[in-house]
Amino acid sequence: MPKTSPGNGFEDFRVGQVIRHATPRTVTTGDVALYNGLFGPRFAVQSSDAFAKAIGYPRAPVDDLLVFHIVFGKTVPDVSLNAVANLGYAGCYFRSPVFPGDTLSALSEVIGLKENSSRKTGIVYVRTTGYKQDSTPVLEYVRWVMVRKRDEAAPARGDHVPRLPTVLDPKVLGEACPPIELSAYDTALSGSPYRYDDYEIGERIDHVDGITVEEAEHQIATRLYQNTARIHFDLYGAKQSRFGRRLIYGGHAISLARALSFNGLANAFHVAAINGGRHVAPLFAGGTVFAWSEVLGKSELPGRADVGALRLRTIATRDRPCEDFPFKSGDDYEEAVLLDLDYWVLMPR
Amino acid sequence: MPKTSPGNGFEDFRVGQVIRHATPRTVTTGDVALYNGLFGPRFAVQSSDAFAKAIGYPRAPVDDLLVFHIVFGKTVPDVSLNAVANLGYAGCYFRSPVFPGDTLSALSEVIGLKENSSRKTGIVYVRTTGYKQDSTPVLEYVRWVMVRKRDEAAPARGDHVPRLPTVLDPKVLGEACPPIELSAYDTALSGSPYRYDDYEIGERIDHVDGITVEEAEHQIATRLYQNTARIHFDLYGAKQSRFGRRLIYGGHAISLARALSFNGLANAFHVAAINGGRHVAPLFAGGTVFAWSEVLGKSELPGRADVGALRLRTIATRDRPCEDFPFKSGDDYEEAVLLDLDYWVLMPR
Amino acid sequence: MPKTSPGNGFEDFRVGQVIRHATPRTVTTGDVALYNGLFGPRFAVQSSDAFAKAIGYPRAPVDDLLVFHIVFGKTVPDVSLNAVANLGYAGCYFRSPVFPGDTLSALSEVIGLKENSSRKTGIVYVRTTGYKQDSTPVLEYVRWVMVRKRDEAAPARGDHVPRLPTVLDPKVLGEACPPIELSAYDTALSGSPYRYDDYEIGERIDHVDGITVEEAEHQIATRLYQNTARIHFDLYGAKQSRFGRRLIYGGHAISLARALSFNGLANAFHVAAINGGRHVAPLFAGGTVFAWSEVLGKSELPGRADVGALRLRTIATRDRPCEDFPFKSGDDYEEAVLLDLDYWVLMPR
Repeated sequence: MPKTSPGNGFEDFRVGQVIRHATPRTVTTGDVALYNGLFGPRFAVQSSDAFAKAIGYPRAPVDDLLVFHIVFGKTVPDVSLNAVANLGYAGCYFRSPVFPGDTLSALSEVIGLKENSSRKTGIVYVRTTGYKQDSTPVLEYVRWVMVRKRDEAAPARGDHVPRLPTVLDPKVLGEACPPIELSAYDTALSGSPYRYDDYEIGERIDHVDGITVEEAEHQIATRLYQNTARIHFDLYGAKQSRFGRRLIYGGHAISLARALSFNGLANAFHVAAINGGRHVAPLFAGGTVFAWSEVLGKSELPGRADVGALRLRTIATRDRPCEDFPFKSGDDYEEAVLLDLDYWVLMPR
Repeated sequence: MPKTSPGNGFEDFRVGQVIRHATPRTVTTGDVALYNGLFGPRFAVQSSDAFAKAIGYPRAPVDDLLVFHIVFGKTVPDVSLNAVANLGYAGCYFRSPVFPGDTLSALSEVIGLKENSSRKTGIVYVRTTGYKQDSTPVLEYVRWVMVRKRDEAAPARGDHVPRLPTVLDPKVLGEACPPIELSAYDTALSGSPYRYDDYEIGERIDHVDGITVEEAEHQIATRLYQNTARIHFDLYGAKQSRFGRRLIYGGHAISLARALSFNGLANAFHVAAINGGRHVAPLFAGGTVFAWSEVLGKSELPGRADVGALRLRTIATRDRPCEDFPFKSGDDYEEAVLLDLDYWVLMPR
Repeated sequence: MPKTSPGNGFEDFRVGQVIRHATPRTVTTGDVALYNGLFGPRFAVQSSDAFAKAIGYPRAPVDDLLVFHIVFGKTVPDVSLNAVANLGYAGCYFRSPVFPGDTLSALSEVIGLKENSSRKTGIVYVRTTGYKQDSTPVLEYVRWVMVRKRDEAAPARGDHVPRLPTVLDPKVLGEACPPIELSAYDTALSGSPYRYDDYEIGERIDHVDGITVEEAEHQIATRLYQNTARIHFDLYGAKQSRFGRRLIYGGHAISLARALSFNGLANAFHVAAINGGRHVAPLFAGGTVFAWSEVLGKSELPGRADVGALRLRTIATRDRPCEDFPFKSGDDYEEAVLLDLDYWVLMPR
């Protein structure tokens, strides 16, 4: 019997199944440094222990997206190794800040299954929770992927399509943010005078700068997350894929867009939740990523006068500056659009 | 007098000579993060402080091969800067776990010398020990290299060919492994249910995945080890070499093969010893590395019921998946083979 | 009103203006590891906690140039985002060692302004101080850049050209160096027997080795410093620049030259000051950097018998080994020269 994991086929999943994923991972200041080198984020809370302490954190928390990528990476060998397509994610919210020294693990529950009419593939819906060594949940999200069947003749287990979360309720948005000492929030150090009240719904912001991605960079990032999807690392195999080359992990574009968004959103110090995201087009090495954002909504947080939440749409593009806010032509995204991300950030008030 | 070190020529060595190598190096979680980003290992013991503590380590130990590369790197300026060829290494075993914060140094004793009949070069045999700040040895190995003479007319000092170690005695294999608390070894988190008893001599495992190497990646890795061999970094000089381009440090392929071997050997949490290794062919950037392993032997450890040792041969290839276990045609290695590594790993029983 | 920072134009500065820069940055062993992987320095004091402690530091200090790059990076969004040219820096000296865990911030005072006769640009002179969370200054330097006016019709504020520091006074050179316990300074571990007294004014040293730079490497380095100058990261924009490709941050060549200088200057364990530097030619990915140094001067430090200062000129070249010390032909630098750096290092006596 082969000891190598072939990954799960569609018929291996059942609704209610709980998968405890390998490999637990202690996050360190080393991971943070490498993340900084790869993406260049400049948000003061994550960059400076002194700044973070002054406003109420015990020390600088780990970048929210680094936490997301590590948790996500753990699910790949069990959930999406045989995926034909990553269809979406939703209802993602951060439940506790993560600090260097914390060990992250992940657990997924299968919450839905739907065989496709071809009977060759099916859609698997999972709810994944990332948690710390002491069982504190740090992150939760729903994801659905199209997975090949190992055996097309295998019987379907009956469909169950879950109700997917859409926009997250503002009351969960503050879970991973301690009370912020506003008087200590120094906007000279944070890089911008604009706070929650300065942003208006409908406002659009061009993040101006562009960052080119190299093969070595996305490979290092994706291995750092222990994400094992072959298409990101294996040029030999990728040459035989429909892309003909290595495909960059979708989360790489998210992290680049978030880092770029500092220019215009410097005080959006915490990604509180991701309502949903769409990887509109693949990204390959050599491409330069630009981004712009629109404020889709604003929300106070129940019982909190320290921070407010902005709902943002951030669009990332490839080889296309965003001063004219490229988005859609009719129903279709413009050709240069890579990513359409709908998420909540917290800002000091 | 030039203050630049030209490295030692063959005639500069004498049997019994002890060389204390520069530069001592404190290993940190930063080094571990970078190693993870470069190779993507997923062994739970090295990845998670929580997992490591549960089974009996004080915290997650540093990857054995990272320790090897750092110790090896220190020897380069003194031993192999003028090497024509790295001929082999043997008798390598780990003597104590290394943790972030430990400072590593290296010391080599010249144990053999043999001038070649051309009188232009000779073979130097050294036994190298890596040790910590408190003199605890962490690693020991024998290595032999062919080194140019500075002056062909220099007299030979008389040959002395040492007896080289072959397969290591199982009784030394547990030195760097604390007693393991088997009841806490969680195989869901470690990524595989297969333990020592599940492997059989002669069993072969295709590790399935491939990883492509970029120039930036191997340069970063090799500099991290403070290895100064020019051929790895200097494109200008490399263009005039027989390869015409930068040659990737042989240890890079070893680390890739070890990381790939997780898929099939997830519980082989400790490299206890390396009996010997052969770099069959050079590896260059752009190549995709695959690997497979064969169980050459099994051994209980004297007095220990917690772990057992598997002797493995791991073969790494370039641009050649390993589902049919490529190895040799007659006496010669198949063309795609890069590395033939014979080593011992420990697994929980 | 756009919330994106467009950077300052020449007319936005005034003499006496003080700018507190974003983003404070906690330096960690992760940053140190990445710096080591990118440049490969081997100076024992920065590499080993054990070595550093033995001679009088509380632990291994952070590489001086990493500190410089981080502080410099902070000033870019405010000072040089609209720079046409970085004209020079001077009077740079290190005032306190930096250790992992320290948080660095930067503050600049505008000390001079001079509009150019074209009235399209002007020269801005700033004195920048890097300091720690407890306000300890760690670094100070003067820099002058040519900055575009936003509006050519904007009136000039009146010129003020400051007196620039030339060679630094030796009495400030020891500020960032604790008393060194010479008996514990082990020259086998540090990699060279040559101390302060072994170097002579006029002596020239070829550092022999070459290092090739990859795009991924300089991008990772420059993002690590949170330096936002677009030309280093944005291939799309760079294609339309006069270079047609990404330009490597000038500090990258300085760090490479410093790392290369270990071979010949292994005991120059501390960069105490930079009198001035000139980036003679741009460096692009694929180039191999070589370096050589000349001892321009020597100085004892007032009241200190432990260390002495060497004033060095280090020349870095591109694709040109330095065994014949390439420098100038007449008044012009030889074509291969990249960098001409005039600085002080400390050595044990």
